[in-house]
Amino acid sequence: MLSKSRLTFIKSLHTKKNRVYTNLFIVEGLKIVSELISSNYRLETIYCTEQCISVVKDLITLARKNIEIGMVSVAEMEKISLLTNPSEVLAVVTDTKNKPADIAYPAIACDSVQDPGNLGTILRVADWFDFPTVILSPGCVEWQNPKVIQASMGSFLRLAITVRALKPFLRQTQAAVYGAVMDGESIYDLNLTPKSILLLGNEGHGIDSELRECISSRITIPRFGGSDSLNVGVAAGILCYEIRRSLRRGVEYPDN
Amino acid sequence: MLSKSRLTFIKSLHTKKNRVYTNLFIVEGLKIVSELISSNYRLETIYCTEQCISVVKDLITLARKNIEIGMVSVAEMEKISLLTNPSEVLAVVTDTKNKPADIAYPAIACDSVQDPGNLGTILRVADWFDFPTVILSPGCVEWQNPKVIQASMGSFLRLAITVRALKPFLRQTQAAVYGAVMDGESIYDLNLTPKSILLLGNEGHGIDSELRECISSRITIPRFGGSDSLNVGVAAGILCYEIRRSLRRGVEYPDN
Repeated sequence: MLSKSRLTFIKSLHTKKNRVYTNLFIVEGLKIVSELISSNYRLETIYCTEQCISVVKDLITLARKNIEIGMVSVAEMEKISLLTNPSEVLAVVTDTKNKPADIAYPAIACDSVQDPGNLGTILRVADWFDFPTVILSPGCVEWQNPKVIQASMGSFLRLAITVRALKPFLRQTQAAVYGAVMDGESIYDLNLTPKSILLLGNEGHGIDSELRECISSRITIPRFGGSDSLNVGVAAGILCYEIRRSLRRGVEYPDN
Repeated sequence: MLSKSRLTFIKSLHTKKNRVYTNLFIVEGLKIVSELISSNYRLETIYCTEQCISVVKDLITLARKNIEIGMVSVAEMEKISLLTNPSEVLAVVTDTKNKPADIAYPAIACDSVQDPGNLGTILRVADWFDFPTVILSPGCVEWQNPKVIQASMGSFLRLAITVRALKPFLRQTQAAVYGAVMDGESIYDLNLTPKSILLLGNEGHGIDSELRECISSRITIPRFGGSDSLNVGVAAGILCYEIRRSLRRGVEYPDN
């Protein structure tokens, strides 16, 4: 049974303002939470319904962790959850990631990606193709947004995600900066290197004009049909797939 | 001003049952509706707020069409719209597509794709890479679902979309059937042909076991990192991109 003040506190984490203020965010679902338990993240509390409490206790014991568990009713879970169909498990997690990290290549940089589903998809793509670092401009949707966390399907756990002003960062990098644009060179014709940063723009406006001078190659996915554009998550998938192809051509892989 | 019965009728199209019964569906947004006006679709009525009525009238005149226009208030638009932020234009469209069509290659076949956003993304990918035909199993979310229409960004207009039982269809086809699976051959190593059908499975369960015998090549996007899976829309993008690459290798293109 949750106290009223505790209920109010967890619900307060539904908003960005309170997530930033407390440095905490919410993760839901048994699969992701079980991965979290064995990760380096610090879990403040795990809330479970009766159905899941023993499996969560076992997972915590197995990982030799000391994490507080709170049992909640299904009705309480519905109140604290952000999902239409709440799961049996909800964790309150300390955000330990949002600090400057060394950049491991290949990396993805996102300029003002707005849609949480798109950012979650980009994180999943980065994880699949082993792009260990994702750099977000301050104008991006926050990666701790619950919809990003859900769409990333746990991929956020395995990535170094950092928020940075992109212009000073891209100006000083030694890596190739590939800017995804509508009128660049066809990626069928290029040999892309994994010592690179793939720069993706906003869904409506693309890459900010201020950043264009930082691009070393303007790259484009060739169009064959009538559509105006590709979804930015799909574009990320195709571009990462193509950058990874170069490994198979025997391009030297950088030390990370 | 909408009559009460008309309002009820339009709102009834929010459900699949009534869309199937009436053979009508809803499309929202000035950009898509303006494309619809100049397409072969039959528009039953276009509802506009005062702000947009003159531009819609001009578009209809330009296309030499005879389409009924209904002016609605912003409050009425909020009632008939399915969007969180309703646009100024909503069209009621006759579904003229759902009949057996000749298959033009390359084609995409979807087996029980459930998420409307994913199906919309797949349609957008098909349009971008000029896969003119999309075949849906009866277990797929219906393509006239408003969320599919929105996510497809108007791409549904340029595609032949047909609903078919996949097993008899795939059994008799002369084209190559590429099944997207987790443990097939790496697409980096294959020369794919555009005289083909790309078969995509359900988000959770992949391709139904009954359909596996119809696959001529089991194909896989190589994984480099830790993610369990890619989003089916992203996978569609990468696979269509790779199938289109073969055109650049000089593979003979089939007559469509």
